[in-house]
Amino acid sequence: MMKKDNFQPARRRWLKRSLTVGGAAAGVATGATALASGSESLITEVQDWNRYLGDGVDANPYGMPSKFEGEAIRRDVAWLTADAKSSVNFTPLHKLEGIITPNGLCFERHHGGIAQIAPEDHRFMINGLVDTPLVFTMEDLKRFPRHNRTYFLECAANSGMEWRGAQLNGCQFTHGMVHNVMYTGVMLKDILAEAGVKASGKWLLPEGADPSHMTRSIPIEKAMDDCMVVFAMNGEALRPEQGYPLRLVVPGWEGNMWVKWLRRIEIGDQPWHHREETSKYTDLLADGRARRFTWTMDIKSVITNPSPQAPINHGRGRTVLSGLAWSGHGTVSRVDVSIDGGRNWHTARIDGPSLSKSVHRFYYEFDWDGRELFLQSRAIDEKRHIQPTKQALREARGENSIYHNNAIQTWYIAKDGTAENVEIS
Amino acid sequence: MMKKDNFQPARRRWLKRSLTVGGAAAGVATGATALASGSESLITEVQDWNRYLGDGVDANPYGMPSKFEGEAIRRDVAWLTADAKSSVNFTPLHKLEGIITPNGLCFERHHGGIAQIAPEDHRFMINGLVDTPLVFTMEDLKRFPRHNRTYFLECAANSGMEWRGAQLNGCQFTHGMVHNVMYTGVMLKDILAEAGVKASGKWLLPEGADPSHMTRSIPIEKAMDDCMVVFAMNGEALRPEQGYPLRLVVPGWEGNMWVKWLRRIEIGDQPWHHREETSKYTDLLADGRARRFTWTMDIKSVITNPSPQAPINHGRGRTVLSGLAWSGHGTVSRVDVSIDGGRNWHTARIDGPSLSKSVHRFYYEFDWDGRELFLQSRAIDEKRHIQPTKQALREARGENSIYHNNAIQTWYIAKDGTAENVEIS
Repeated sequence: MMKKDNFQPARRRWLKRSLTVGGAAAGVATGATALASGSESLITEVQDWNRYLGDGVDANPYGMPSKFEGEAIRRDVAWLTADAKSSVNFTPLHKLEGIITPNGLCFERHHGGIAQIAPEDHRFMINGLVDTPLVFTMEDLKRFPRHNRTYFLECAANSGMEWRGAQLNGCQFTHGMVHNVMYTGVMLKDILAEAGVKASGKWLLPEGADPSHMTRSIPIEKAMDDCMVVFAMNGEALRPEQGYPLRLVVPGWEGNMWVKWLRRIEIGDQPWHHREETSKYTDLLADGRARRFTWTMDIKSVITNPSPQAPINHGRGRTVLSGLAWSGHGTVSRVDVSIDGGRNWHTARIDGPSLSKSVHRFYYEFDWDGRELFLQSRAIDEKRHIQPTKQALREARGENSIYHNNAIQTWYIAKDGTAENVEIS
Repeated sequence: MMKKDNFQPARRRWLKRSLTVGGAAAGVATGATALASGSESLITEVQDWNRYLGDGVDANPYGMPSKFEGEAIRRDVAWLTADAKSSVNFTPLHKLEGIITPNGLCFERHHGGIAQIAPEDHRFMINGLVDTPLVFTMEDLKRFPRHNRTYFLECAANSGMEWRGAQLNGCQFTHGMVHNVMYTGVMLKDILAEAGVKASGKWLLPEGADPSHMTRSIPIEKAMDDCMVVFAMNGEALRPEQGYPLRLVVPGWEGNMWVKWLRRIEIGDQPWHHREETSKYTDLLADGRARRFTWTMDIKSVITNPSPQAPINHGRGRTVLSGLAWSGHGTVSRVDVSIDGGRNWHTARIDGPSLSKSVHRFYYEFDWDGRELFLQSRAIDEKRHIQPTKQALREARGENSIYHNNAIQTWYIAKDGTAENVEIS
């Protein structure tokens, strides 16, 4: 079974021949093939790609992924909204490694299409309850001290389709409204200090320059804590779909508040209760009341591999389980993993930087005996928040909420290695 | 002067009008314009880009930079080599922020063009002085425990043209053979353990699958320390020009040893002295002898902004100086900056993660009085190595070395803000 998958029939002559001289070595956990002595030349002789010269350094002034990586793309779901100009596409979490989301694969959510703004024409205004209303060019903003911080951004509606039952077959669709980026920009508090916030100024209303004119109310305490006004992501300028040339970063809070194409912040004395914080982005409870001001994204995790879009292809034996965990409350202190639907839990290995309000990469290596599995991950953050079960979340909030589903996710692994989104109770 | 640069004549109606109502506010360090009370509507009314809907979420399955970022590209220098298929292009350091180099902007150096290898056809072999010679598929390799580490890669020839005097006008060309990436892969020592290195095995010969069949000799101690075999960079699969689907990572050591399109590692009992470690990548001294085994990239830094490709456009006043520092010996503990050619030094602010063998971002904010400047940066690493002057480096090594120039770089800033590559003695 494993051999069949690993070695497709006769794709290259040397593949066929190497099969005849070797075979899986005893004690080799990864399925590598032992090579008979003197057969080394087989691997160095007949490879197509070293028979001719490839492209030169003048071919790609801006590099692109390999043509063999066509599956590593954002995907939208056409039926989810009325129009692609007011919709979402999803980060391919099952194709990612580490903690950085490449800029080309960061999920998009916008409400009036992608604005194309020339940076020299863009202006950013601070007005309202300030001593001096100010207008900044992009160049003005770059004269404040710059800071570099890595944060996850998660849409409040991420995993929203799962409230009423397992629905979407792949972590790209169930959990793909999250990305993790190193931002460069300036602290919002430094900008506010330059304008001078009046004593009566308690709330902020950031506003986007795109056709949807996105606005959200943000309390001044958050602005004075860790909010940033940023112009770069992962080392280069923001991408248009991420708000080029300027966006607001609201660490740990729901993505809709991270206003893109940021053109204005008004200071007021109370929240505005605009459309996107009343008709949307509030959590409807079972009794018809709504939770409001539910800004922080709670502790959450998901197993990205194996998962429905990334089945186990190598058969039984050594298997690497990999996933992501994040919390709007700070760092993730521990991730537990279960392969039997929550009966037994194993502490996963967190690898890579552990940064506050940033995703954490976790691994759990185990020997798969070929039996059916029910994979789950359960994360715990530095403030001792722990991921709830779907059942517990529904008992607390009903089934209408859509937003802020941070429940434990289950993937069923069949004997043939394929995976499916399921619920167990 | 500043006004003229900040506000181009009549590009938008609202720009003209905002000029009439405001003016630089007293005490506003960044050059922002104060807005007269009641004029806020000017900024929200007449912007082209919110009059029509932009592209939807189905437009870019893999996102690209803004059309206004056409200057943020790799650049090659046609005259440097005989053919673009065996040449280099340069990272646009002056356009970058933070510490992560976006994958599309990582400089390239290859000797037979970019190999295009289908991952399912790729094999990686361990042979030579091992108990069990092994052949791995890409899938086999992904069954080892994975690790995520951020490292700089610098070509030994970076800044090589500067040995005999200031020659290239821009940090992209003087220092652009460096990039910094978060890699995901497996530890080479784990792979070697599976094959079993014989007691006589002291050296490794990694070999590339591209037409140049790049090979370099690496001592076993380095392999057992922190070398990695990686398949991902900054969260996604390696780019073809960076060795897709597999490359060797040799942290802190010269980039030529990080063999791309890695297909084989042979274990031997002595170094091979192949072409790329004798005729090239050795440092010729004044007396005709050559330094060899000069693998570690020494402490180094460069000011990326302002620099010849990124002049000061905002005139006098608050100015942000920014740059990068790195060391193959570990973390960078301090960066000093001078604006008067080394007479006075100021400790720069390091911002963002401080990781071993990774670039560090530094800043120095100062008020420019409009006079001529001679900008220099001087980095110190955790092992107390300090960047030398060009003069000191030449005294020690002569002027033939080409490789391993880590000397202090000087940019001259003229009164009009333009910058030039100069040497001072």
